[in-house]
Amino acid sequence: MTERLSDTGRKTMLEPLLANGWRLLDGRDAIIKTYEFTDFPEAFAFMTRAALWAEKWNHHPDWTNAWNRVTVTLTTHDVGGLSAQDVKLARKLDQLT
Amino acid sequence: MTERLSDTGRKTMLEPLLANGWRLLDGRDAIIKTYEFTDFPEAFAFMTRAALWAEKWNHHPDWTNAWNRVTVTLTTHDVGGLSAQDVKLARKLDQLT
Repeated sequence: MTERLSDTGRKTMLEPLLANGWRLLDGRDAIIKTYEFTDFPEAFAFMTRAALWAEKWNHHPDWTNAWNRVTVTLTTHDVGGLSAQDVKLARKLDQLT
Repeated sequence: MTERLSDTGRKTMLEPLLANGWRLLDGRDAIIKTYEFTDFPEAFAFMTRAALWAEKWNHHPDWTNAWNRVTVTLTTHDVGGLSAQDVKLARKLDQLT
């Protein structure tokens, strides 16, 4: 079962992400990061790679694209906040750039 | 050269879009539409088709995806508002669903 991150989980799992460009959203238990690419094809190529992992893991980002920028918001709707699934997907996205 | 839509252009070109789910944004000369699909793969398949046209025409949407929904905002940054390019891309997106 997916559960919200515990205090310990937050410390150990979120801190490396927060040190790598992710930040906590105000007023919502979610993390957000903006990736910047050289152009639209590069940005959309990243989104395509990410889409396959999101679907494979059945955990989907809320994301916005404007030309060379992709802003990703991660949270787990089923638990009303951050879970280990968000951490796993965030790490994967960082690998896909 | 790309130019902002004239009053006549707005009437003839925007009205069919506004009758087809597009609406004008408040406070910005841009149009927006939300497309809803059965699931994430269908939503992302639409985005992939759209991305190829956007790149081909060098006119890119600002868009957001959350699972089965894709919200597209169109405007022409170079002219600070709506141009015929937005109308052309909007029509194409409607065909791609």
